[in-house]
Formats: sequence, structure tokens, C-alpha cells
Amino acid sequence: MNLTGANFIAGVPSQEGTATFTSVNPRTRQPGAVRFHNATAEEINRAATAAAEAFAQTRLYPAARLAEFLDVLVEEINALGDELLTTADMETALGLPRLTGERGRTTGQLAAFAKLLREGSYVEAIIDTALPDRQPAPRPDIRRMLVPLGPAAVFSASNFPFAFAVCGGDSASAWAAGCPVVVKAHPGHPATSELFAQAVNRAITRCGFPPGWFSLLQGNTAEVGQILVQHERIEAVGFTGSLRAGRAIFDTASRREHPIPVYAEMGSVNPVVILPGALATRMEALAEGFVNSVTLGSGQFCTNPGLAFVLDGEQTQPFIDLVREKMSARAPGVLLNESIERGLSAAVTTTQARPGVATLTGGEAVAGEAFCYANTVLQTRAVDFTADPLLQSEHFGPVTLLVVCADLDELLAALGALHGNLTATIQGEADEGALAATVYAVLREKVGRLIWNGFPTGVEVVYAMQHGGPYPATTAPGTTSVGMTAIKRFLRPVAYQNLPDALLPPALQNANPLGIWRTLDGELTKVAVR
Amino acid sequence: MNLTGANFIAGVPSQEGTATFTSVNPRTRQPGAVRFHNATAEEINRAATAAAEAFAQTRLYPAARLAEFLDVLVEEINALGDELLTTADMETALGLPRLTGERGRTTGQLAAFAKLLREGSYVEAIIDTALPDRQPAPRPDIRRMLVPLGPAAVFSASNFPFAFAVCGGDSASAWAAGCPVVVKAHPGHPATSELFAQAVNRAITRCGFPPGWFSLLQGNTAEVGQILVQHERIEAVGFTGSLRAGRAIFDTASRREHPIPVYAEMGSVNPVVILPGALATRMEALAEGFVNSVTLGSGQFCTNPGLAFVLDGEQTQPFIDLVREKMSARAPGVLLNESIERGLSAAVTTTQARPGVATLTGGEAVAGEAFCYANTVLQTRAVDFTADPLLQSEHFGPVTLLVVCADLDELLAALGALHGNLTATIQGEADEGALAATVYAVLREKVGRLIWNGFPTGVEVVYAMQHGGPYPATTAPGTTSVGMTAIKRFLRPVAYQNLPDALLPPALQNANPLGIWRTLDGELTKVAVR
Repeated sequence: MNLTGANFIAGVPSQEGTATFTSVNPRTRQPGAVRFHNATAEEINRAATAAAEAFAQTRLYPAARLAEFLDVLVEEINALGDELLTTADMETALGLPRLTGERGRTTGQLAAFAKLLREGSYVEAIIDTALPDRQPAPRPDIRRMLVPLGPAAVFSASNFPFAFAVCGGDSASAWAAGCPVVVKAHPGHPATSELFAQAVNRAITRCGFPPGWFSLLQGNTAEVGQILVQHERIEAVGFTGSLRAGRAIFDTASRREHPIPVYAEMGSVNPVVILPGALATRMEALAEGFVNSVTLGSGQFCTNPGLAFVLDGEQTQPFIDLVREKMSARAPGVLLNESIERGLSAAVTTTQARPGVATLTGGEAVAGEAFCYANTVLQTRAVDFTADPLLQSEHFGPVTLLVVCADLDELLAALGALHGNLTATIQGEADEGALAATVYAVLREKVGRLIWNGFPTGVEVVYAMQHGGPYPATTAPGTTSVGMTAIKRFLRPVAYQNLPDALLPPALQNANPLGIWRTLDGELTKVAVR
Repeated sequence: MNLTGANFIAGVPSQEGTATFTSVNPRTRQPGAVRFHNATAEEINRAATAAAEAFAQTRLYPAARLAEFLDVLVEEINALGDELLTTADMETALGLPRLTGERGRTTGQLAAFAKLLREGSYVEAIIDTALPDRQPAPRPDIRRMLVPLGPAAVFSASNFPFAFAVCGGDSASAWAAGCPVVVKAHPGHPATSELFAQAVNRAITRCGFPPGWFSLLQGNTAEVGQILVQHERIEAVGFTGSLRAGRAIFDTASRREHPIPVYAEMGSVNPVVILPGALATRMEALAEGFVNSVTLGSGQFCTNPGLAFVLDGEQTQPFIDLVREKMSARAPGVLLNESIERGLSAAVTTTQARPGVATLTGGEAVAGEAFCYANTVLQTRAVDFTADPLLQSEHFGPVTLLVVCADLDELLAALGALHGNLTATIQGEADEGALAATVYAVLREKVGRLIWNGFPTGVEVVYAMQHGGPYPATTAPGTTSVGMTAIKRFLRPVAYQNLPDALLPPALQNANPLGIWRTLDGELTKVAVR
């Protein structure tokens, strides 16, 4: 396919800006052939305005029509074929097997939202019928459902060029909600983003959606995103990326004359607690699984286990040695870009300089053509960890910090000092349930997902998934960016009081023409009213 | 009962501050007998710290235990007897009938949350069972439910000394969620607040809850609230009041190192659209109902219809005359306090100075002992309204602005220019459905509640109620401060991955011991897993 290097504003290629950039092959540091144009303020304004114009139509679309768009988009993404995979691999070095899997996850996610829409109960219909004889005054009929929030700005992540990008979870859930999307593409994979934009625009044409339903903005500066978030027609923001960038967007959105919600997922250190029984019975498998999780995708996951707690005992030093050996024995992977390599170097260097931190292996960038950082194991004691909030900083890459706890009290104190995280994991044996319960009780307040005898990497796209957590994991602890309830972020409730049936939306009409679950006078049911 | 004038920090009276204030009788401007002490920074710190300590226990309480507290609290509020009513009447001049009704609403709300808790499905349990044979990797078992968010700060409103105050909707829903509450009492009714605090503390003692479950902070400066919102142990804020105060709290919470959600309901002008058919068939009843709604509670409701749109026609001038006559014929009510009288005067004066605004009646404070402002009708044209955002300012009191629209296009343009509101109302006849549908389509984007042939005052506490709306009506358009779903503001989701049944909370255990509705592999059901 032809790559243009343009932004796509409501379907129209546009490259009015003079500032340009290219992608960079992480394996060779060679620039890509196409120059991409940073979106200008005027282009951003056109995108947001077109999104608002589109919203005037799409906010009233039935769920089935939104579902059709998602299904057609799956077809168009699949029609991009191998070029999508090879382009993304050249821009990210994530490898074809991983990218093939990620494509399946991405299209599966769009299809899952289409299914949710067709089932229809996601609008959370609630009906309280009138009490005409109530004293001193009759109670009116009140019916409530969720409606779309408005045009959304979506920021792509670097580390998931498909699943958290142009057609990723934020866009999928905003579209599913009926909200137009303006994507700020990640500068690490602009060509991949343009291919997705072509797919979206074809799906829009096929479905007869208004062109402002989607725009793609390119840019390698923070300014593009800042202007977008400040635009008065943008009503919500989805973001996946670093704490620094996410917080900057949150701050801007909060300072608007009309503040808007920011759903920023900003990474995490994902503590793993290894109980003594697990160490005693399966040390080798534990170390292998842990190192697999730390190094998966060169450690570039929000759910990378960057922190592990072990209770001091006979098995502790052998386990630490094993982790160190396995980490140093593995060839370090390629990092996504120079910024990640530089940021990782700086973060590890900062941590190494904290009191009580030892470097067991790694701790430096790997020389060569590729962006690359050594697989790194750091170690500290629980008392030092508890006293030093800086030891909770994320090292975005194949790096983990082992924290040795002298006893359970030290462990619980360290866990009690944790900031918000996406996940927390316990590895334990069946007979360690009481201990695990004690530890989970502390961990539950810190995270969005608790894991038993697994590792945190791998986020299933299911109804029950919670990919979120207290700050600084996210800016919105009540929401998730993965799983079917992600759609709730882009919906808001509206109540209808005493409206005649013909003026009510179908979801709230007496006959329940959509056949959805509704809470009718306090009881969940699919029956008609009266 | 003895009023002390103290703050109540985790059950303990405390009056360490030197700054004091009294309530003021709005009918006589006479100060009350008791001096109330502004909470100090140290007292605020103790309250927030005690709330966090209490949360360590209450976050694990079963819903039935939380329900018991709410039911006992109802008993204790009722046990306050007539003293509560007479005290509140002396502080607010709202009158015994209204206050009696509001007390019933307040206790009814607590009881309704207790019922919701005992039913139990509010935790939104979702279970996706494992797929052990999935390729290339098994899918784990994922289960998700809502858990309490953490200690909440609640700001009382002036205009509902019971229903939006110490034991009002914000406190009720936070407690129902399992969250301790630190209330910043409104300085307009400190004695009423202290009576409620006594009831809460007795309920805490009877139920064996930790004392930090509730603290009461008094204060007549913004500083008390600001310090509270900045406290790192506070995790959420509920607020009902003015746009200026709500926005200041939102800004503070957003600027924290660890930002927290602010659920601020900040008032509204609640547009009413009167269609020609309604005017033609029932002008007298319409005018009477409208004036009743504008003047109810001296106009001191967030849902006061401060704005009405009429299409120009034969009936328009007679209707306007009728509204003017009825408004001027009614004795103006007493306002809550001097600050409201002063603020209302300033707001009306500002509006009167805008181009194209005429004052039909009122427009000035009423001299005399009581805080009082004349029932006021302002008028303008749709073109002026559409061009001037300042005409959307709230006049908190018995004031309404009539907007005459030359035709439907002018009406739709004016409605399209509306900022966020809590409610919007259409008055029309059965044969005006098509016109109403066109108007509702515009209004839906602007509000949280749409009303047909009613008036916006009167907010039912039911499952389906939505008391919220786009900014500036609230800072959180996805939430409501009234109705059963208000509890969602103080909950957040947690997912459990592959946990053994014994380590899962009861809501997620295989057997469904709570008997609640759960989404099991995509289907709502009460059946056990497997």
C-alpha cells in the first residue's frame, strides 16, 4: 500500500505542517523511507470539529449499527494482510509471532465489543415505574440508561502497536459507545498507524458513517497531544503510556474551562510475592516463569513484574542466584526506540544510586546497532524499600528488583507502602492459604488485578478483566482500559422522567423491543413493563 | 440535647481552634447561641488519618454489616425527634413541613441503600471461567467485582440540611460502599450538623464500627475544606454547592501528587421548553406549575427552572404576563443566608446589565429583617441568549429568565448553545411528539435528566434517578449524586485471576453463597459456577 506520511482528518489526507519525522528501525537505527508530518493546530482543530459534527449523528445510532462498523473494521484490518505485520515489525522489532498474536487480540477485541452491542444490556437500563397514588405527591416514572459521552481523544502506546493503538482498546470501546475518535498516533510506529487509518477509513466508507468518526494525527512532540486535549469539542481522553506523559495530559484536561475525564493507564511495577512453600517445592519453575515474564517483549509491558518480594529463608539465596543466572544467560531483546533505551538507563542508574540497592546482573545498555538494554536484576532489603518511595519507580524494560524481607511483618510493611499498581501476584502452595489471605488483604487496596500462581504479563480481553488501578497506575481507578467494561468510560447516564413511550429510546420502551436485561422496579428482568 | 460547638474527630469532641462562628437565623439575622469552632489543620489530619485506619477494617466488612449500620443510623436520626426539625428550621428557615419531608427522604435514602446492600448485586460480579485447552496458551479464570475506594470527604450543601448534608446522599452512598466519611459541615447549619453527628456516633457505637468511620469538621472558611481535600489519606470527594466552590475543590484534588476523583454537583439553570400546543391548551396551569417550581424553597434548588424557552406566537405574551403576575403576587420567601442573598443580588445585577435583558418583575433584595429577594422574572430574545454565555449563569433563588424564540431554528440554536445542566424539561401536548423528539435530541447532550410535562424540582430517590450532568452541572458526568447508582462513585473494580475458591470474596465464589446476579461467561445468572 502507499504510505503518504499525512495526517488523516475526517478521511482526508492532510500534511500542512513543515515539521516531519520518520520511524526508526530499532534493530538498525535506520530511518524509515516515509516522512510523517506533525499535525498542525489547524489540522487538530479540524479533526476535533469533524468529530463533534460526526457525533451529532452517531450518538443516535442504534447499537447494531455501531456493531456493524466494528465487524467491518475487523475485515478491513485483516485485509491489510502481511504488510501490517512486516511494517509493524520494522517499526517496533516486536517480531512476527508476537505481532500476529497481537493482531488477533485486536480484531478479537473489536468483535467482542460488537457482540456486546448486539446483546445490548451494556446500556444498564433501569426503570422505576410511577406510583400515582403516593402521598403527598405521585411518584413519576423514571427510566435511565447510558448514552455516549462525546468525541474522544485516544493516545496510542508504543509497546502495543495494534492492541493499544489506532484500533486498540481505547478506540474500540469509544466507538462501541458511539463516540467518534481522534487518535494521536505514537511516533514510534507512524507507518503502522497509517495502515490502520486506511482500514478505518475504508470501514467508514463501507458503513456510511460520517467521516469525522475518525481522524489520525501524527506527531513526535508533546504539543500535538496537548492541543488536542485542550480542544473544547473533545469530551474524554484515553491514554496508555508513561506516568510523565499521562500526568501532563491529565493536568491539561483538568485545567480546561470545561474539564474532561482522562483515562490514563500509566504503567506499573506489578509486585510479585513469593511465599516460602512455593520456593521450597518448585524453585526452578518459579524462576523460569518469573524470568520469562520479566523479559517477555523485552520487558516492555505495563504488567511486567518489576518487583518481587521474598521472605528470607534457606531457599532465598538459591532462588535469587537462579533468577540472576537465568536473566544473564538470556540474550537481551531489542527495545522499541531510543527514548525507551535512554529512559531505562536513566531510571536504573537512579535506582542503583539509592541506599541499599545492589546490582546482581545487567544495569547497562548493550552496545551495538540495536536499541538494547541488558537483562537486569537489582536487589534490596524490605526496610530500605519501605523507607524509599523512589524504589517504586518503573524501569520500563527487562529489569526487576528483588526485595528480601526478614519476616512477615517486614513484608506486610513493604506491601503497605506500595503505590497504586495494575497487578499484584502471589505465588504460593495450597497449604499457604492463610498467609496468602493476609497478603491479599493488603494488596487488594493497591491494585486492579490480583493473581495467584501466575505472572502478570498477559491481559485477557474478557468481560471480567480489570486493567487499571489506583494512581499512579491510572488516573481513574474506577475504570478499566481492557475488557468489556472499558466501554463504560465513554458512556454517561441519562434519566427520562414521564416521557411517553414513543419519545423514549428503544432500550427504555415498555415492550423492551431490544430484549435486554433491565432493572425494573429493583429487579433484573427482560419482561416488558406492565 | 447539648450542643457543644465542637468538631467530632472519630467520635471525640475537639475544639482546638480559636476561630469560631455561629449560625444565623435567616428570618431575624440573629446569631445562634452556640459558637462553633473552625477545624484546625491538626484536627483535619486526625480525622483523615482515623478514616484511613477505620478503612483498614471496614473495607472487608460484608455488605450485611454495612446495611445494619445504615438501618441503625435511621433509628438514631429518628430518635433526634423534633429538636432536629426545629434546630434546622431556625438555621435555614425552610419550614417544618419541608424539613419533615426532607427528613423522611434522608432516612428513606439510607434505608434504600441498606436494601441494595442486602440484595448484594451492586458489586457487579463478573466471572469468566478458564479455558484450559485454549491455544496457544490456556485462558485463566478471571473474576471481577467492585470494592470500596477509600476514605471519602463529603461537603454539605446549604439548601438541603438533611438530604445533602451530614447523613445525606453522599455520606449514605460512601458508607454503603464501605468507605469512611469525613464531613465538612456547611457553616449555614452547624447545630443541625452537630445533631446528626451525635446520631452517627451513636450508631457507630451500637454497631461496633471503628470510630474513624465518621468525623465532622465545622468551619466557615474555604480553608478547612481545602486542607481536607489535600490530605493524602482522602481518596474521593463528594460535594454539592456552587460552581465556584466546587471548581476550587476539583482543582485542588486534581493538583494533588496523587489526584482523586471529585464528584461535585454544582447547580444548574434547568431549561424548560414550552411548546405551542401546551401554551394553547393549558396556559394557566402551566404558568401556575412553573411559578410553583421557580419559587419552591425560595428557589433554592439545584433543579430550579431558571430558564424557560417559548416560541413566539399568539399565546406567548399572555403567558409571559401571567408568569410575571403570579411571580409578583407571591410573597417572596426567606433565603438561607446572607451569602446567598448577596450572591443572588450580584448575579441578577450582572444579568440585567447584559444586552437585551429586560426585568419584568423583581430584581432586587427585599428590605427587612429576613434575608429575602424579590421573586424575579427576566426576559430576553433567543438571539441574545445564544450569543451571550453569561446569560446561562445560575441565579440561586426565586429567579427565572424567559427566552422568546422567533422560530424553531432560533430555539434549537439556543438549546445547542446550552452548557451542561442537571435537567431539561419539555412541556407539550400529545400531538407535538415530533417537535418534542427534535428538541429532546438536542437537549439529551446537555443534561442528566429529561422531563416531560413536569417540572425539574423534586428529585426522586430511586434506582433510575440520574442527578448529574455535563460540566458545569457536575465535574463527573458519568456519575449521579442521587439514586441507588450513586454508590458506584465510591467503588472500584478489582479482578481476581486463578484464585482458589477459598481465597475469593464470597461474591465471586463458585457456589454464589450471596445469591447475587453475576455475569457468568457473558450471561447474567444466579447459578453457581460449574
